[in-house]
Amino acid sequence: MVMTPEQKRIVEFAAEQFGPKTVTTDPSDIEPWLTDWRRRYRGAAPAILSPASTEAVSALVALANDLGVALVPQGGNSGMVGGAVPPVDGSALLLSTRRMNRIRSISPEANLAIAEAGVILATFRDAAEAAGRRFPLDLGARGSATIGGLVSTNAGGVQVLRFGTMRALVAGIEAVLPDGSVHDGLSALKKDNRGYDLTQLLIGAEGTLGIVTAATLRLVPAAAARAVAWIGLDSPAKALTLLRRLQAATDMIESFEIMPDDTVALVLEHVPGTRLPLSGRHRWHVLVEAVSSDVAAEAPSAVLERLLADAFAADLAQDAVLAASEAQAEAFWRIRHSISEAERAAGPAVQHDISVPVDDMPRFMVEGGAEAEARFPGTHAIAYGHLGDGNVHFHVRAPQGADHDRWYAEDGPRITRLVHDMVVAAGGSISAEHGIGQMKRDELARLSPPARIAALRAIKTALDPRHILNPGKLVALAPETGRT
Amino acid sequence: MVMTPEQKRIVEFAAEQFGPKTVTTDPSDIEPWLTDWRRRYRGAAPAILSPASTEAVSALVALANDLGVALVPQGGNSGMVGGAVPPVDGSALLLSTRRMNRIRSISPEANLAIAEAGVILATFRDAAEAAGRRFPLDLGARGSATIGGLVSTNAGGVQVLRFGTMRALVAGIEAVLPDGSVHDGLSALKKDNRGYDLTQLLIGAEGTLGIVTAATLRLVPAAAARAVAWIGLDSPAKALTLLRRLQAATDMIESFEIMPDDTVALVLEHVPGTRLPLSGRHRWHVLVEAVSSDVAAEAPSAVLERLLADAFAADLAQDAVLAASEAQAEAFWRIRHSISEAERAAGPAVQHDISVPVDDMPRFMVEGGAEAEARFPGTHAIAYGHLGDGNVHFHVRAPQGADHDRWYAEDGPRITRLVHDMVVAAGGSISAEHGIGQMKRDELARLSPPARIAALRAIKTALDPRHILNPGKLVALAPETGRT
Repeated sequence: MVMTPEQKRIVEFAAEQFGPKTVTTDPSDIEPWLTDWRRRYRGAAPAILSPASTEAVSALVALANDLGVALVPQGGNSGMVGGAVPPVDGSALLLSTRRMNRIRSISPEANLAIAEAGVILATFRDAAEAAGRRFPLDLGARGSATIGGLVSTNAGGVQVLRFGTMRALVAGIEAVLPDGSVHDGLSALKKDNRGYDLTQLLIGAEGTLGIVTAATLRLVPAAAARAVAWIGLDSPAKALTLLRRLQAATDMIESFEIMPDDTVALVLEHVPGTRLPLSGRHRWHVLVEAVSSDVAAEAPSAVLERLLADAFAADLAQDAVLAASEAQAEAFWRIRHSISEAERAAGPAVQHDISVPVDDMPRFMVEGGAEAEARFPGTHAIAYGHLGDGNVHFHVRAPQGADHDRWYAEDGPRITRLVHDMVVAAGGSISAEHGIGQMKRDELARLSPPARIAALRAIKTALDPRHILNPGKLVALAPETGRT
Repeated sequence: MVMTPEQKRIVEFAAEQFGPKTVTTDPSDIEPWLTDWRRRYRGAAPAILSPASTEAVSALVALANDLGVALVPQGGNSGMVGGAVPPVDGSALLLSTRRMNRIRSISPEANLAIAEAGVILATFRDAAEAAGRRFPLDLGARGSATIGGLVSTNAGGVQVLRFGTMRALVAGIEAVLPDGSVHDGLSALKKDNRGYDLTQLLIGAEGTLGIVTAATLRLVPAAAARAVAWIGLDSPAKALTLLRRLQAATDMIESFEIMPDDTVALVLEHVPGTRLPLSGRHRWHVLVEAVSSDVAAEAPSAVLERLLADAFAADLAQDAVLAASEAQAEAFWRIRHSISEAERAAGPAVQHDISVPVDDMPRFMVEGGAEAEARFPGTHAIAYGHLGDGNVHFHVRAPQGADHDRWYAEDGPRITRLVHDMVVAAGGSISAEHGIGQMKRDELARLSPPARIAALRAIKTALDPRHILNPGKLVALAPETGRT
């Protein structure tokens, strides 16, 4: 695709100053990076810039800002909301962090490590483990998601319960601001009150306010032992009561995932080699994981066994089984991780990544699901996931026999509006972990107080007055700017 | 003092709409609120507005914005950097949160409480305790500091080691933005990725971007038992090694305060009723507190006793004693809390609230102190405080026989520049916990990269284009705005 003269200048400058590896212009090499992995969005870009250092990012951003050329930062391109897909008109260049992939330092004593933006999550987790520590954030895309993207989307995952989202794990960041200046916030200060916290502002900003080039990340003690249990119970309300009891009794609980029985049944039906850990059927299932880092402490399996016995006595759980081996623990987890795959096999679903206050989640799961099914007859609504974070995947599946494409195109947006309206009524968030990107930008605008959208726009324009960073994502700019 | 017509309109509107209690115009009632408690700064204001509800704050801020009248938010007025003192020219009205003093809700199950801005820290801590929980932030001004001020300054204190600063304890906030709109972020969502995090931006913004009217705060389990130990040791380096060992072995460590021997000696000399817990003398002293919330767990005293025995064996500590009673524990703490009083009795000191990366703090304490004494002959530099947070109070005392006022005025600023330069060279912060206010505004500008100051200004102007909130604090505006 043809470059504008300004794009051409940037590409030439990049190759001259930082070497030919810094530039990709072959369309077949660019192609895989123009669409998101779920293939919902597709953009265009005449080149990918791949700077290998913060200085190079700084120089490229400064030049792009001078010339008014937009840049779309991209890490592992594993996002769920089209946040790393360039605009369709080819007006932006992709800026990939893939060559910034060094772990600059790792200190088990201080429980800190500095990783560049392009370091892949799995690599970083392995490095932490090799240093005798753990990086307690994990998600399905661990093999491709990068530190820069995880910071920029404030990623969550299945370990948030105990250690929090990315925001809680970031001790500092280095980022290139839209004018090319470098925000050096890597120094891990436990206390620092020097005015507005730019690091906090850049976390979750989806590359619209700056390009994260490195982060100082917190590590936690290595796991000495873990226990995984599968529990059958009556209702999300009982599951939450159980979770509260577990958390009051021990700080070992790292995961607590809830799944309705029909969803588990779908996995058993569609995913070969899976089998139910319990012999009887129950309306709801919970997968709980307890981890101890202290070899001298009571074993997590003993803790869970004791606490689950209490739960039976209190009529909170009907049945439960502890994984007897690591292989069995992995088999339990495989059921949870296979839900997406099983759902795909069962037909189309409109998917929502939502949160409400934790206490209200049991009600929301039951009433919200019933409401969606009542308003869209024949659909089947399911909610599963991170009960303890107040965050579930709320999916509404097509009626039997529906024309899939037509249903998705016609009923999909109406179902999403209903779900989002219910979430807002419950004081919740229409994006618990995936961010806004382009997918939820207009829904965010529809459902936010105008003052909030005005504040987001004002911040964006203040820090990126020429709107060169990741245009069209997160918040639409006011019409008079002439850009989206 | 005479009001401008615009100020008069606001005052009349406040009294008419929200009742006479909303307005204070008697100079003798205003007087105590025009200076900070350390009496370093003094301003002027013709009236105090004391709205009792978020709606009233919203209406008053909207009107002030329309009329271009500045407002200075004030909570307990216990700040250390002049952040709540109005400008000297009387151009601003004070806006006190004192009447917004309800605890709106408290949920021990969810470990959350919603408190209005004017709730006093001690009151809130008591309420948490009455609900069977703890609010783990504590500082000397607990009897006057308010929730709104603590949020707006991202307060720290002596319990940060385990639970973090205010930022880590805030689950959500409600704030009135400069245009009078209400940011309703009280809903405590564990996961929420809807664009730039306004809550994070307002924490630590010192009332320059919005007026915090309420906050959702995290509670932690009540303390079941605590143990307090006094330790004599050789050096800050050994103290840090000891702390790392304690933290690796248990998560009970909530405080770890380091003090040099001559500072402790000053307390013993000047503060009646204090006596050294150990019989021999040591170059450095450490006060450590371990707290357990689990009655079934090993007692904190047993844990400390065991770990301190290891510390002797590893030559990290020379002597130590566990408080045998609550009274003795309080007596240990009294030494630590009396340092300010003892220092005042010993003569003037230039004080600095600084942080550096934790690992570097032992070196900084020793080398930084030696450098200050070498550069300013006759002075005595001491560093004490929160070693585990990388945050110490770094004080430089006047030479014997110096003319105190003259020394403070002439050498004070030069000493401060030296200390701040050393802190910046170490990648540290010139404000670890007190904020910037007016005291450190120019030092922040001197020591920050221009791009950072430009970013702070851009954010301020974006959200408060008429510069009505807390003018003159945190960041000086560009000269062309015509305001400071």
